[in-house]
Amino acid sequence: MSAFTRFTPLIQSLPSTIPFVGPEAIERQRGRAIAARIGANESGFGPAESVVQAMREAATGTWKYADPENHDLKQALATRLGVSAANIAIGEGIDGLLGQIVRLVIEPGMPVVTSFGAYPTFNYHVVGHGGRLVTVPYVGDREDLDGLLAAVKKENAPLVYFANPDNPMGSWWPAERIVEFAKALPETTLFILDEAYCETAPAEALPAIDAFIDMPNVVRTRTFSKAYGLAGSRVGYVVTTPGTAQAFDKIRNHFGMNRIGVAAAVAALADRDYLATVTARIAHSRERIAEIAQSNGLSPLVSATNFVAIDCGRDAVYARAIVDTLMSDHGIFIRMPGVAPLNRCIRVSTGPQAEMDLLEAALPNVLAKLAGGQ
Amino acid sequence: MSAFTRFTPLIQSLPSTIPFVGPEAIERQRGRAIAARIGANESGFGPAESVVQAMREAATGTWKYADPENHDLKQALATRLGVSAANIAIGEGIDGLLGQIVRLVIEPGMPVVTSFGAYPTFNYHVVGHGGRLVTVPYVGDREDLDGLLAAVKKENAPLVYFANPDNPMGSWWPAERIVEFAKALPETTLFILDEAYCETAPAEALPAIDAFIDMPNVVRTRTFSKAYGLAGSRVGYVVTTPGTAQAFDKIRNHFGMNRIGVAAAVAALADRDYLATVTARIAHSRERIAEIAQSNGLSPLVSATNFVAIDCGRDAVYARAIVDTLMSDHGIFIRMPGVAPLNRCIRVSTGPQAEMDLLEAALPNVLAKLAGGQ
Repeated sequence: MSAFTRFTPLIQSLPSTIPFVGPEAIERQRGRAIAARIGANESGFGPAESVVQAMREAATGTWKYADPENHDLKQALATRLGVSAANIAIGEGIDGLLGQIVRLVIEPGMPVVTSFGAYPTFNYHVVGHGGRLVTVPYVGDREDLDGLLAAVKKENAPLVYFANPDNPMGSWWPAERIVEFAKALPETTLFILDEAYCETAPAEALPAIDAFIDMPNVVRTRTFSKAYGLAGSRVGYVVTTPGTAQAFDKIRNHFGMNRIGVAAAVAALADRDYLATVTARIAHSRERIAEIAQSNGLSPLVSATNFVAIDCGRDAVYARAIVDTLMSDHGIFIRMPGVAPLNRCIRVSTGPQAEMDLLEAALPNVLAKLAGGQ
Repeated sequence: MSAFTRFTPLIQSLPSTIPFVGPEAIERQRGRAIAARIGANESGFGPAESVVQAMREAATGTWKYADPENHDLKQALATRLGVSAANIAIGEGIDGLLGQIVRLVIEPGMPVVTSFGAYPTFNYHVVGHGGRLVTVPYVGDREDLDGLLAAVKKENAPLVYFANPDNPMGSWWPAERIVEFAKALPETTLFILDEAYCETAPAEALPAIDAFIDMPNVVRTRTFSKAYGLAGSRVGYVVTTPGTAQAFDKIRNHFGMNRIGVAAAVAALADRDYLATVTARIAHSRERIAEIAQSNGLSPLVSATNFVAIDCGRDAVYARAIVDTLMSDHGIFIRMPGVAPLNRCIRVSTGPQAEMDLLEAALPNVLAKLAGGQ
């Protein structure tokens, strides 16, 4: 296949890859519609009705570019968080922001520290900018903070990433351990604290918003994709110092935000009742998933996120067979971690009762089928 | 202001800039609402009613990420254009795609050829990746194709950009000259043919879709932001060879598209009647702008786009005064080219009759005020 011959050497070295296969692609490959979409940590509970209404009202205005300064959204976030708008940078979801952060810091060959088996899209951006991944194994299904810190120091790494609460395991560290980690870092290491799942986490897992607000080497990433139910809107943000926040203006696509998406985010922040309601529903769904797992002899991990990792007690081949059979026989879309030992688990996103009912009905059949096939 | 100290040297050399000040920022700065938004080459005619309806229907589905393969949109485009889906790459507007293209090709210090005064956002991306801009002056308010080709060859440049029809001047070259330019390029030079305004151009300005379809060093960029009235949706696409199209998969944000925006683009392609209607309205509005200019003693340039550049017959200071006074006294937002000699002109986007009426009423007052102020 003929491609342009003079892409940069770095580009030529990269695969035309994708960090995750999307559920629509799975539907096309298998010729089967998904009955329960509980694999991508989206929120099947959806956005608030007030947010749906705000999006519908914004539809006629979409002939206009969004405000490149994202003024209103920054103000709304600043008010909610108790920081200044200057502490905030807005981007096309955390995925987009991670790409920008990597570009701000990484030149080819530089080491980047993350956990082995953590967020593949972060790794994708690191590799895409020529960074060298230095991975630290999970310990007890949690990120190994001491190990990450040691790797940073050993490598003199300019960038370290982890999520708290964690994806794909759902585990978390208490706030004081996160603060301790940040303060122990060299000032020349940028720490990405991914808090995509902060809304569903216990308060003890979240450092105070001012815990790092004067540390230019800490960026906290957050999103409207999870609890707020707006994955398709692509709105994420960073909280950091004004100086570090301003660096995003050097490289971001200033007119890159979707106007309806921004309107949705502003409306979502205003509907605090819905956030309380939906996080309760997510917590309830976590319990339901755990019960379903246990009643099938599997071991759910405690989760602070909108998903539950379930230890299936065997190896990755077995976990993969469960994932594949849930989809092929029942149209239930879930995912699983990518590397050992995490990949003894499957990962099920929380969702409405109908999806949970489908899972509850299907899982015994899948496990029985796999047992019969041994 | 404290920023992280270890951003890359390239990043540290960049300003926290923005290619354009947005109209919302102008409103905030001046404390005055915009009465006529005819400066950013958006389409005040809006998207089709069928598209608004499609967006409203898509609102409840926005808890899902968009399909990372953009399958349905690619298929719809392929069918419409008469190419394969493999010839297409989708991105967050042409701005986003330009950033990706620059990243695919440019390493620090490499020369990039464009016209002096052409699209600032392209230049922003080039500088952001450390490229060295090599600019060729416009000749007769058109891109100088011979000059661009000579600059490419002299510099052995890996990348050359121009728009046809052109922004900010609205001028165009006939298709055969564009084809001639492309075929004369070295295979080691990637040619970005920006066709953002193709829907409003005469047929003679558009090379056949298969004119370059086997040339891996030509990428045509198109958008739903202009004639389709979906600037706020951020959906653009590239037409090129399958090999070159696949390179975007190496670096793009696979889950970066807004789900409602994609639905809007698919719906827009299906409503061919609206496209015919709106391009007629745009053409009519171009004539109206030209008449307003002429009746005020100014010289409109012939345009193939959704805007008209108007030669104000004097210098940039005068043109800037017209732009500023239209806004300050009348709330009319227009823009102007950034460099000489183009900046003797102002640039007015087409729009509905109400906006044209405001312009018609305001312009004589503005010119009289400026004449009185001499």
